Amino acid sequence: MERIYVCDIKDSKDTQILVRGWVHKIHELSTISFVHLRDKTGIIQLVMDKKHSKQLRLEMSIEAIGEKVMNEKAPGGIELDAKELTILGEVFYDKLPFEINGFKLNACLEKQLDYRALALRRPKTRAVFKVQEEITDAFRTYLKSRRFSEIHTPKVISSSTEGGSEMFTVDYFGRRAFLAQSPQFYKQMMVGAGFERVFEIAPAYRAELHNTWRHLNEYISLDIEMGFIKDETELMDLEEGFLNYLYSVLRKTCKSEFEMYNIELPEKIEIPRIPLAEAHKILLDKYNKKSPVGNIDAEGEVLISKYVKETYNCDFVFLTEYPVAKRPMYAMPDSEKPGLTKSFDLIFKGLEITTGGQRIHNYEMLKENIKKFGLNPDDFAFYLETFKYGMPPHGGLAIGLERLTLKILDLENVREATLLPRDLRRLEP
Amino acid sequence: MERIYVCDIKDSKDTQILVRGWVHKIHELSTISFVHLRDKTGIIQLVMDKKHSKQLRLEMSIEAIGEKVMNEKAPGGIELDAKELTILGEVFYDKLPFEINGFKLNACLEKQLDYRALALRRPKTRAVFKVQEEITDAFRTYLKSRRFSEIHTPKVISSSTEGGSEMFTVDYFGRRAFLAQSPQFYKQMMVGAGFERVFEIAPAYRAELHNTWRHLNEYISLDIEMGFIKDETELMDLEEGFLNYLYSVLRKTCKSEFEMYNIELPEKIEIPRIPLAEAHKILLDKYNKKSPVGNIDAEGEVLISKYVKETYNCDFVFLTEYPVAKRPMYAMPDSEKPGLTKSFDLIFKGLEITTGGQRIHNYEMLKENIKKFGLNPDDFAFYLETFKYGMPPHGGLAIGLERLTLKILDLENVREATLLPRDLRRLEP
Repeated sequence: MERIYVCDIKDSKDTQILVRGWVHKIHELSTISFVHLRDKTGIIQLVMDKKHSKQLRLEMSIEAIGEKVMNEKAPGGIELDAKELTILGEVFYDKLPFEINGFKLNACLEKQLDYRALALRRPKTRAVFKVQEEITDAFRTYLKSRRFSEIHTPKVISSSTEGGSEMFTVDYFGRRAFLAQSPQFYKQMMVGAGFERVFEIAPAYRAELHNTWRHLNEYISLDIEMGFIKDETELMDLEEGFLNYLYSVLRKTCKSEFEMYNIELPEKIEIPRIPLAEAHKILLDKYNKKSPVGNIDAEGEVLISKYVKETYNCDFVFLTEYPVAKRPMYAMPDSEKPGLTKSFDLIFKGLEITTGGQRIHNYEMLKENIKKFGLNPDDFAFYLETFKYGMPPHGGLAIGLERLTLKILDLENVREATLLPRDLRRLEP
Repeated sequence: MERIYVCDIKDSKDTQILVRGWVHKIHELSTISFVHLRDKTGIIQLVMDKKHSKQLRLEMSIEAIGEKVMNEKAPGGIELDAKELTILGEVFYDKLPFEINGFKLNACLEKQLDYRALALRRPKTRAVFKVQEEITDAFRTYLKSRRFSEIHTPKVISSSTEGGSEMFTVDYFGRRAFLAQSPQFYKQMMVGAGFERVFEIAPAYRAELHNTWRHLNEYISLDIEMGFIKDETELMDLEEGFLNYLYSVLRKTCKSEFEMYNIELPEKIEIPRIPLAEAHKILLDKYNKKSPVGNIDAEGEVLISKYVKETYNCDFVFLTEYPVAKRPMYAMPDSEKPGLTKSFDLIFKGLEITTGGQRIHNYEMLKENIKKFGLNPDDFAFYLETFKYGMPPHGGLAIGLERLTLKILDLENVREATLLPRDLRRLEP
């Protein structure tokens, strides 16, 4: 007899069915018991003789065979009159660390993370990762339909992309290596290698000493690099197009997840593009908020999002024209606006989720810029090598997957959008 | 005017077209020149005035606008009468390190890897990664259709899965951490966390001191873990099903790539399952080959594949029933066959590409087994924690992506199936 998933029971023609899952709730009456079985896809009520349910404890994994019965009072309108019951996985606890089956999970986030495998059994907690999976799928589908190739580049690298700070070091057979902050150099190389348009979904590492709601030391970066572009506006168009596509997908695939989190997605996203200097002016005029030179701080991100929401009814805003001094050495200077680069950030509900821009593609210009930044071109030999052979104009961007998930679901902490977060303190589980 | 990709020119209704790409070949006659332009999708001949072609050098990136002309003598039967020509990316070399446009790439693998971005411009070299991308897509599609969830687990971990040898160490804010050899513990945890069936496509690390054609120190692992299984045969069925699906996909999507490599895929794969002890006996009887106790060496892998090819006309063979002593502490012992485990390897054309098996799911049994292996259960506290709450019977497997690609295309070195390989010596590019 084949196992049937809970979500498929309603439409199944079989009357005798076999289900598997975990014991979610036990409610014993005088002779019979109602037991809720939870599988990956949902929860069904099993009705059984009390002598069967006596051996059950919460969170055991079980198999049950029985007759499908329509019952308006049961959750989902269906229950199973269970005749056979098998315990598949025993439990070994005195008391569960927290309740899985309550309306709220009565444990702080740290405790949930300590018992991550157990906390994720709660459907609402696990739902975050259904949404996250749809995000990566939509990212991949959207880009592949535009002839992007998915690539895999090494995460153990010999040199730093951005100057060496805030990187984890690895002992590589006695040599000092690093964990990649981003696939920046490699994705550019792969554009030059003839793939033209590439993307990568892979871990990235930041040895930052921040321990906040929005920082992770290991996260998943959705990276894009695109050759033969006109300028950075093509990249913003691409990201805006992706976000619109993503929302259209999520509306279809994550209905029940959005219901759990009480989220409604807008029909159409049109993202304002505001030069950084103008954003500074808005922040000062409207909120009396001073910004750091050539940048925007966390408070500024929140305020500019508030402004854009009120003015344009949009949750997103592109900040553009960052100054040369605040961008990496590979950022393309804007020849018409001295001191500025053809770069941008994307702020989503007060949180930066993307940095992007056009890159320098001319070998001599890049070498000169590396020097201007006080770096040694010899340290970037393999990177520079690519630029000797007809590197086309190109640019790209990166989206932090956990941050995007966090903001779509209005979560409070980026760790909620990570199966097993790594932060300053946490290396386990 | 919108850019058109070379592969779309034939079916395009436009007569005036714009193409972009790299200068693949230049052939100058008295007044006109034939220039081959290569983009991501193919090569087209441009016919231009010699005064235009004079400024061109091999591997520059260019844009050309002109009229589409049918010409039987041109490659693909079409050429472009180029009227406008723009150089998009300059070149900075005296002599190319090797030819891109020859029939063979006249550079050894090491040199190709040193100039990886350039070597990949050769369509045949890049074709490997088109096949590789189809493999990961097929893996994902096949598993998702069977209700597997894609997960992302951390690669920086606090303890080792297999006992601590052969792992790279990371300085994690002053603490000693490791790069994960596999997501073994985490994928099991996620089965227990209610995802039931999970897969991951992510880097894995082995600090092995081997420097051979088949070893990489960083590789992409296609990992599967599946809950509520009967036994390990379900896992072999799953992998066999995947491989059949994969081949059906590749036959459709990679026709031209397989032509380049002269590969024909069999219509149907039925994989023999041979207990290890029986394989040992075959090797001894048929090839006078002795095997190491409880295992099979590289020569044995080649010979047993030869035997299976001759006997069953199959490129694959599952070796089963590995002894307890040669498998990790989490391998499920076979209660009916003392000393053996419910595990398997998959050998493909003489190379191991998969290790898999059923795992122990009972908390007490797992704890005892950890002790039997001379390890301390306290070191596995977070892993063991998962097993206290109704862990169902489960198992899984992992496929080395580069090895699978290598063998499908009959390549000689696993580095050919890696964009940017990491080995004992190579940390760059």
